[in-house]
Amino acid sequence: MKRTQLFIKTRKDAPADEVAKNAQLLIRAGFVYKVMAGVYAYTPLGIRVIEKIKQIVREEMDAIGGAELIMTALQRPDTWQTTKRWDDDVVDVWFKTQLKDGQEVGLAWSHEEAIIEMMKQHISSYKDLPQYVYQHQTKFRNELRSKSGIMRGREFVMKDMYSVCLDEKQHETFYSACTNAYMRVFERLGIGEDTFVTFASGGAFTKFSHEFQTICDAGEDTVYMNSDRSVVLNEEVLNEDTLKELGVSRDDLTPVTTAEVGNIFNFGTQKSEEMDFSYTDKEGKKQFVYLGSYGIGITRVMGVIAEKMSDDKGLVWHANVAPYKVYLASIGDVSADAENLYKSLKSSNIEVLYDDRDARPGDKFADADLMGIPIRVVISSRTLEEQSVEVKLRSSEDTRLVSLGDISNYIASIEQ
Amino acid sequence: MKRTQLFIKTRKDAPADEVAKNAQLLIRAGFVYKVMAGVYAYTPLGIRVIEKIKQIVREEMDAIGGAELIMTALQRPDTWQTTKRWDDDVVDVWFKTQLKDGQEVGLAWSHEEAIIEMMKQHISSYKDLPQYVYQHQTKFRNELRSKSGIMRGREFVMKDMYSVCLDEKQHETFYSACTNAYMRVFERLGIGEDTFVTFASGGAFTKFSHEFQTICDAGEDTVYMNSDRSVVLNEEVLNEDTLKELGVSRDDLTPVTTAEVGNIFNFGTQKSEEMDFSYTDKEGKKQFVYLGSYGIGITRVMGVIAEKMSDDKGLVWHANVAPYKVYLASIGDVSADAENLYKSLKSSNIEVLYDDRDARPGDKFADADLMGIPIRVVISSRTLEEQSVEVKLRSSEDTRLVSLGDISNYIASIEQ
Repeated sequence: MKRTQLFIKTRKDAPADEVAKNAQLLIRAGFVYKVMAGVYAYTPLGIRVIEKIKQIVREEMDAIGGAELIMTALQRPDTWQTTKRWDDDVVDVWFKTQLKDGQEVGLAWSHEEAIIEMMKQHISSYKDLPQYVYQHQTKFRNELRSKSGIMRGREFVMKDMYSVCLDEKQHETFYSACTNAYMRVFERLGIGEDTFVTFASGGAFTKFSHEFQTICDAGEDTVYMNSDRSVVLNEEVLNEDTLKELGVSRDDLTPVTTAEVGNIFNFGTQKSEEMDFSYTDKEGKKQFVYLGSYGIGITRVMGVIAEKMSDDKGLVWHANVAPYKVYLASIGDVSADAENLYKSLKSSNIEVLYDDRDARPGDKFADADLMGIPIRVVISSRTLEEQSVEVKLRSSEDTRLVSLGDISNYIASIEQ
Repeated sequence: MKRTQLFIKTRKDAPADEVAKNAQLLIRAGFVYKVMAGVYAYTPLGIRVIEKIKQIVREEMDAIGGAELIMTALQRPDTWQTTKRWDDDVVDVWFKTQLKDGQEVGLAWSHEEAIIEMMKQHISSYKDLPQYVYQHQTKFRNELRSKSGIMRGREFVMKDMYSVCLDEKQHETFYSACTNAYMRVFERLGIGEDTFVTFASGGAFTKFSHEFQTICDAGEDTVYMNSDRSVVLNEEVLNEDTLKELGVSRDDLTPVTTAEVGNIFNFGTQKSEEMDFSYTDKEGKKQFVYLGSYGIGITRVMGVIAEKMSDDKGLVWHANVAPYKVYLASIGDVSADAENLYKSLKSSNIEVLYDDRDARPGDKFADADLMGIPIRVVISSRTLEEQSVEVKLRSSEDTRLVSLGDISNYIASIEQ
C-alpha cells in the first residue's frame, strides 16, 4: 500500500477526551477512529492488525477441531428468557430495540443462548457429538462507562467458541486442548510470557473456571501470583481452601495488575438443562449435553498489545500482528527507484507500506516510528550511490546499509 | 472438514414459515439458520460461501485502489442530523436504542455520513486526494416485512465503497473503473451473463445512477431490456427523454424480473456541502470534494446465486463460491483408505468435505447434491478393487472412474 492511497494522517497529540493510552496511541498513529466512547472504527491500518490477530486465533481453533460460523447481532427475547437472561436486572448491558411491529429485540452481548438454540436443532444423537464451533463476532455491551479505549468497548470483536460434549470426560479433554491452544495464541501474539492461566471462580459444575490474564498496567484486574509464576489466581478465589488445594502460601503471592484477554468456562449440564439441549445415548436414554465456552477478546487483545508494546515514539508491533512488515520511505527525488523497490518487495510477498508522499524525511521517520512498523527501509540518492538502502528495526537504534540485490532476502530473514 | 465435525443436519423439508426459495434451499442444505424473519446466521458451510464472495469483491476493489477498513454499527445522531437523515420520517429503516445515560444511538443502515465524518478529519489538501475506501460490514434495516430470505435482510452484509475525488473528471474516471470492476465481480461469481448495468434515476449532480441488476425470478425489480441486451433501464427512468438519449424505442424493450445486486452513485458535491467536507486546492482556494458510493449486497448476492443455480435436488454452486470443491463420500468399511485420500486431497490444497459418517450411501449422495458441492468423489470397496474412485460433477449425470494416483491432478484440472 502507498501512503498516498491511505487517507490517514497521523497526529502529534491525542484527542483531549481520550484517557486510555491504547486509544491515544492508536488514534495518533491512525489505526482507529473514535465514534463515541467505547465505539471505535478501524482504518485500513487497524483492520490489518485485527485480521492478523483473528487469523492466528482461527488457525489455533481450527487445529483443535473448531468450525467457524457467524451468528447474528439481533436476538429474540424468547431465546434468552429460558435462562432468565433477557431481564435487564439480570444482564445490565443489553442494548434493546424494536421491530416495526413493536416486537422487542436485543443486540447480542454474548451468543451462548443463541448458539445453543441453533445447535439443538441439529444435534440429537451421541453420534453427533462432540462439536466445537466458534465465531469472530461483534458484541454490543451497554457499559455505563467506557474509558479503557479499545480494551473495553460498547461495540467490540470477540472470538467465542462453544463445545458440546457427551460427558464430562469428553469435555475435560477439549477444555485442556483449548487451554493449550489459547497459550499458543498468546505466544504467537507476542504476549505469551506475560500471560497466565488464572484460577477464577467456577459455577455449579466446576470449582474453578480459568481466565487468561496478561500483565498490563492499564488492566482492570488484579491477580495474585507466586514467585515462580506457576500459580496465579484472582481475588474471588483467594481463600484458605484454594491456597491449600493449589499448594501455595499467601505470603508467596504478589498482586499484579492485569487485563483479561481470554476465559474458558465449564457450564456442565446447567445450561443444557435450562434450554433442554439433550441427546440420545447408545442405550437410547436421554442425556443432557456438556457445554463449555471459550472467549478471546480480539479488539481487547489489540489494545493490550498497544499498551504493552510502545515507547515514547509510538507503537512497536510484534511482527506477527504488525499491519505491514516494512515501512519504505523515499527521500528526495528517487521515485522511480523507490517504485521499483516497492514492486520488487511486494513481488517477494513482503507486506510493505510505501511512503511516497512529498514530505520531509523527519515526518516520514516519525510516522514509521509512531505506526510501529517493524522494519524501516530508507531509499535516497545517498543510499543509491552505493546501490543500497538503509535498514533500521523499530526495536533498535542501529541502521545498516543493505544492497538492493539482497534486500528482499535480508528482510525475509528478519524474524522481528 | 469432516462431516462428523460439522454439526449440521440437512432437512428434507423447508420450515413452514419460510417462503423464499433461496432461504428454503439454504436452510434445508444447512448453510443458514433463521433467527427471525430477515435475520439469518451462517453455519460453517454458509460462512465459507460468504467469505469467498467477499474475497472476490476484495480483490477487485483492491485492484482499483480501494483500501479496506471497518466502521461501526452504533451511530451518533449528530452525524446524521447534518443531512437530516436521522429523522425516522426521512429514513424509515432505523433501529434505534439508547446508551445508559439516555443518549439515543442508531444501528447503521448505511455508512455514508459516518465515513464522510471520519474522512473529513484526515483530508484537507488536494495532495490528499483521491481516496477510495470500502468495507464489508453488517447493515441493520428495520424493514416492515422481510420475506425474501437472505435477499432482503433486516441484518445483512454489504460491501460499500466510497470515493473522494478532487473534481468531476477524477470522479468519472473512478466511476468507470468501478463499473468495470463490478462486472468482473459478477462474472467471477458466475452471474455475469445475467447481470446488467442498468440506468436508474440520478440525483442533483447526475442524470442517471447505475444499478447492477441480475435476472432472477425472485427479484423485486423490473427492468426494461432491448433485444440485444445492450440497453437496460429501470422503470423510474422509462420516459421519452431517456429513450431518445439512449437511442432505443419503447417497442424494443421487454420487462424482465431482476434482483439488484449492486449500485453505484454520484453524489457530486451535494453531501460534501451538507457536511462541509472540503479541501484546499493548488491555488489555496476551498473546494468541496466529489463523492461517490458503490454497493454490493454480499448476502443478497449469495441469495441470488442460490435462487438461480439450483435444481430439484438442491443447490448447484459455481466453483468460485462453493464452500468446498469436493464432496468425498465413503461407502462401506473403507475408512482407512478414505482417510488417506482425504489427507492427500487436502495436502494438494483441494477443499474437501469428507462425509465420514456412518450413513447410507443414498443419504450421502443426497446431501452432496443438496449442498451443491461441484465434484462428488465416491470411494468404496468396489472402486478400490480398481485402485480408483468414482467422480461425478454436480452439474452432470455422468460418472467416471479415476485412479487414486491421478485423482488430485484430475480434480485440479476441473474448472467447474
